[in-house]
Amino acid sequence: MQFFSDNATPVCPSVMAAIAAADREDHGYDGDAWTARLDGAFSDLFGAPAKAMWVSTGTAANSIALACLCPPYGGVVAQEEAHIAVDECGAPAFFTHGASLMTLPGEGGKLPPEAVRERVEAIRPDVHQIPARAISITNATEYGLAYTPDEVAALGAVANDHGLGFHMDGARFANAVAHLGCHPGDVTWRAGVDALSFGCVKNGGMVGEALVFFGAQAEARAAEAERWRKRSGHLFSKGRYLAAQLLAMLEDGLWLANARAANAAARALAESANGRLMHPVQANELFLRLTAAEAASLRARGFGFHDWGEGAARIVTNWSQDAAGVAPLADALRALG
Amino acid sequence: MQFFSDNATPVCPSVMAAIAAADREDHGYDGDAWTARLDGAFSDLFGAPAKAMWVSTGTAANSIALACLCPPYGGVVAQEEAHIAVDECGAPAFFTHGASLMTLPGEGGKLPPEAVRERVEAIRPDVHQIPARAISITNATEYGLAYTPDEVAALGAVANDHGLGFHMDGARFANAVAHLGCHPGDVTWRAGVDALSFGCVKNGGMVGEALVFFGAQAEARAAEAERWRKRSGHLFSKGRYLAAQLLAMLEDGLWLANARAANAAARALAESANGRLMHPVQANELFLRLTAAEAASLRARGFGFHDWGEGAARIVTNWSQDAAGVAPLADALRALG
Amino acid sequence: MQFFSDNATPVCPSVMAAIAAADREDHGYDGDAWTARLDGAFSDLFGAPAKAMWVSTGTAANSIALACLCPPYGGVVAQEEAHIAVDECGAPAFFTHGASLMTLPGEGGKLPPEAVRERVEAIRPDVHQIPARAISITNATEYGLAYTPDEVAALGAVANDHGLGFHMDGARFANAVAHLGCHPGDVTWRAGVDALSFGCVKNGGMVGEALVFFGAQAEARAAEAERWRKRSGHLFSKGRYLAAQLLAMLEDGLWLANARAANAAARALAESANGRLMHPVQANELFLRLTAAEAASLRARGFGFHDWGEGAARIVTNWSQDAAGVAPLADALRALG
Amino acid sequence: MQFFSDNATPVCPSVMAAIAAADREDHGYDGDAWTARLDGAFSDLFGAPAKAMWVSTGTAANSIALACLCPPYGGVVAQEEAHIAVDECGAPAFFTHGASLMTLPGEGGKLPPEAVRERVEAIRPDVHQIPARAISITNATEYGLAYTPDEVAALGAVANDHGLGFHMDGARFANAVAHLGCHPGDVTWRAGVDALSFGCVKNGGMVGEALVFFGAQAEARAAEAERWRKRSGHLFSKGRYLAAQLLAMLEDGLWLANARAANAAARALAESANGRLMHPVQANELFLRLTAAEAASLRARGFGFHDWGEGAARIVTNWSQDAAGVAPLADALRALG
Repeated sequence: MQFFSDNATPVCPSVMAAIAAADREDHGYDGDAWTARLDGAFSDLFGAPAKAMWVSTGTAANSIALACLCPPYGGVVAQEEAHIAVDECGAPAFFTHGASLMTLPGEGGKLPPEAVRERVEAIRPDVHQIPARAISITNATEYGLAYTPDEVAALGAVANDHGLGFHMDGARFANAVAHLGCHPGDVTWRAGVDALSFGCVKNGGMVGEALVFFGAQAEARAAEAERWRKRSGHLFSKGRYLAAQLLAMLEDGLWLANARAANAAARALAESANGRLMHPVQANELFLRLTAAEAASLRARGFGFHDWGEGAARIVTNWSQDAAGVAPLADALRALG
Repeated sequence: MQFFSDNATPVCPSVMAAIAAADREDHGYDGDAWTARLDGAFSDLFGAPAKAMWVSTGTAANSIALACLCPPYGGVVAQEEAHIAVDECGAPAFFTHGASLMTLPGEGGKLPPEAVRERVEAIRPDVHQIPARAISITNATEYGLAYTPDEVAALGAVANDHGLGFHMDGARFANAVAHLGCHPGDVTWRAGVDALSFGCVKNGGMVGEALVFFGAQAEARAAEAERWRKRSGHLFSKGRYLAAQLLAMLEDGLWLANARAANAAARALAESANGRLMHPVQANELFLRLTAAEAASLRARGFGFHDWGEGAARIVTNWSQDAAGVAPLADALRALG
Repeated sequence: MQFFSDNATPVCPSVMAAIAAADREDHGYDGDAWTARLDGAFSDLFGAPAKAMWVSTGTAANSIALACLCPPYGGVVAQEEAHIAVDECGAPAFFTHGASLMTLPGEGGKLPPEAVRERVEAIRPDVHQIPARAISITNATEYGLAYTPDEVAALGAVANDHGLGFHMDGARFANAVAHLGCHPGDVTWRAGVDALSFGCVKNGGMVGEALVFFGAQAEARAAEAERWRKRSGHLFSKGRYLAAQLLAMLEDGLWLANARAANAAARALAESANGRLMHPVQANELFLRLTAAEAASLRARGFGFHDWGEGAARIVTNWSQDAAGVAPLADALRALG
Repeated sequence: MQFFSDNATPVCPSVMAAIAAADREDHGYDGDAWTARLDGAFSDLFGAPAKAMWVSTGTAANSIALACLCPPYGGVVAQEEAHIAVDECGAPAFFTHGASLMTLPGEGGKLPPEAVRERVEAIRPDVHQIPARAISITNATEYGLAYTPDEVAALGAVANDHGLGFHMDGARFANAVAHLGCHPGDVTWRAGVDALSFGCVKNGGMVGEALVFFGAQAEARAAEAERWRKRSGHLFSKGRYLAAQLLAMLEDGLWLANARAANAAARALAESANGRLMHPVQANELFLRLTAAEAASLRARGFGFHDWGEGAARIVTNWSQDAAGVAPLADALRALG
């Protein structure tokens, strides 16, 4: 049983069915019937006018979003362990033509609003220093914590006060919302978010995420984003297969159902490993203190997962699991004491 | 019956089956079992050591190839109607960080070797002028013509004489080889090609092309290309679904069988429209002189295709068709006289 | 006597005196008293509100201007022999992050307005093609011809109709205006020019050109340009020495006086070589048909100049010459017959 | 008496004389007699084969050096207060096409070798993380401390062990060497430095610094650097005026004499303000604890300087001063108690 990452699971059956249903001739690129429905579907989901486009990967979604929010000479404030900072080989700098990541520490992967404000206000307004132009946060964070609506809004207020764009990397947005139980608008546009990378692949998709723009500038930014998508080689000729996956995710709340299953699995494991938790378990990731011997013993029993530095491990659950399904690992963890 | 483009057809059944067969957990990104087989499969196909990687689109494949062959201050010689020059919104400039396209006219989309040589030799070697560093050709060309092994080799000789990288955009490589009846190595590495964008999507794939490097620098360039693939957001986390498509294409010669079907369909149409042809029909595209009235009459009968300037049309056949399947359009064309 | 280029002459005495006069402590970068006077001095010169900044070279001025007028995915229409296209090693692509030069042929280095209009209108508005976003012309052209106010205005009208920025490379702007006898505003802002590279080095300066913005967006573009100037390493810490040169140029019409001297020298030579002229002589350049033997005989007598392809030569006069001063070459040319 | 910065002083007389002596016609760009002497002059100075080129500013020198040492997807390790990190508006990212600055804390502006080693070794070698490719240090540091030969060599060893390029920002290199009393080769090529930005403007020049490459790759990197210099608009047409300044600096040890004067002035001030020093005074900068009232009282007496955060000030001496010349400020500081 594998807990390496939610990014390598099979595709969930409804998404696979949607792919099969899209297997007929249509217009190429983004001219097909599925793509045409995206704006509406995401506007409905978020309860506000939104512009939505399929993008092939989370890295592309994040980078294109930032390219629309930040000029080449600007800076993007982010938590120092954010995916954009440590796991994208500089993709944001590539797409923005050299914008700088201004990283800050933050408990559990969260960006502290007051630290952001201080950092931004310490920048001299002359041409010698890089001006902050955007904030980017990850929800759920890289440590599996969900920003609450209030927490997002506090950062949104900083963004608003300083004229910064506000981006949310939602590779595990569904897991965050499933935990919070709030309306998806509460942690996005209502809290000041301008652009959201809405993850699907980790939540049961095959390829394709959604990039969603909110607010008064949504239309203009989406038009810009379409240029970047083409120019970066991300405009698929058979785009309908991506659009169909996104639509399948939204239909009947599949995105939330999948996330709830993964979260439930994580909660079940957390209960069995209570004393070992390095972070609260809110989404579908557990970070555990685990000795090398303990890790080896779990692996010997067929459980796969990544080490997380020395004496620690990361366990990621996914849409295809649930509390019952992960019982063998839960038992094994409990047995470790 | 649609003849708009081969880039929007359904996925061919063997490829779809391969996608389904890849629908099980494996390592993420490029760490899976399918991806691991690509180098071998393409080396076998081409009869020479090759490094092959999946890339999401033809634009990405072309651009990443050029980024590995040409520095930011260099130039890429290409035919003026090449896809990289007119239909990629400047993607090659994005990936190369500003390299210049040095475009030349050429009959039927082909780049004339002597014109390339002249162009390259006219550049002063000082720092004021952009040095040519690569040649890029499309095979089959944008007008559906196939470069013969000798024609490619003549350009390869120019590349070799001047230390230029040599790239081939093979969005319809299969159609070219199917027409030529040669070994795929004859129009690539044996003729001096360093990097090939090996098209799959137009030939029955869903998403994903192969970028193939040949020659002594293949290893180093592929390592560089892997950086660009990640940095540009093209490293899919479920890359196995792309690798599986490519492998399916190579298995039992599917790539050639599909291309032969499309070519046969095009030939059948060409025979019915002989007097109207603006270019010889070698691959799966026809460019026809067609009055507005004639075009309208064909459309009225349900045939879809693009105009190609005034008084002309482009008709593209695809893997799902064959000579018999396009008989209705053949008859209609013949009836036009 | 050297006629290689006007870009390597000594500095004219008034400019050298201005440099000496700036040799006292002041604020660094662009905070000094000289720099503070630039906006006013150029606004006075052009008879309209202008934002002016010193820039180190013509290449930098041109590139920064284009970076302010054209996005990375856009195109700049220019004559195919323009300095930005053939002699700047891709600097415009570097500063614009990959914008494309859309080059057109044109007699005498001039860009024909109707050809520009056609080229721009032929671009499909979809995301696959690069949209034209700016026009750039050189006045006087690379062949020493001056655009008249009407000619500039005709291009300005195209720019206006299609929402394009309009840039003028004025490396030899003074020579053009000296020939035309018009107000400098007539061939710039009154004709729709948004940004002017105002040349000084070829006209007697040491280092430093002016980049001048006109019109409603001047302020915003200049602010953007200041970012690019810093980011590209062009913000000198002792900027006052550059500002002082520009101010010296404008004082008492030195810029025009210098250009008139150079033009007069060119005219004198033109009269002696009438039958050999390949282009009308309007500014300070002559392009002559000259056999290899004739060129050798002139060089033997101590006249230095560049060949211009086979059987032709380019002769450039400069601010330090005048009709009388170039009499020896004039005589020698006349003697050739 | 101004102590704002050494970057805004007058030009020292020998340099001004050299400019005047260069005021005659010669070949343009880098084809003149002065430029031709640079490689030899710097090779002599450093006691090793060196390639040297004039560059207009320190920002340009730093950025071009880094562009030659680090690919777009690579990282440059630097101290977090380095000029390249905080005062160049992202110029290194512009020239390297997006390379990342990996900043580390370090006492007095110095980069601790062991911290660099740890940072570099913590990077996973996969394509997801940005690989370190270069180290950049400032000597003297932004806090006026000089790296000793051993300290540089310790960093050079890390660079060597990990295949990193090694750059030194020597905006105040002369002040460092004047303090150390060592051979300039001891803190550069003998300690593993590949590229040095050799500062002149702060040391009495007008415009122009030298970019110097050492070692086996010097030739190739310098050729690359010449492309970047042109492409970034830094190739002056009257380059001889820059070359002449650099040569004047090297002649008769002017660079060291000027630095010694500035250092002596700083030392004299340091002795008067001993209890207030925040860093040892080794070069020509003093960082002092100073209350707002004290600062105001000094300013009231005509001394100009920058605050350095709250309760602190920065005082910079320069080539035109010496111990005697700064006596008034020394007295005033002493009087503050």
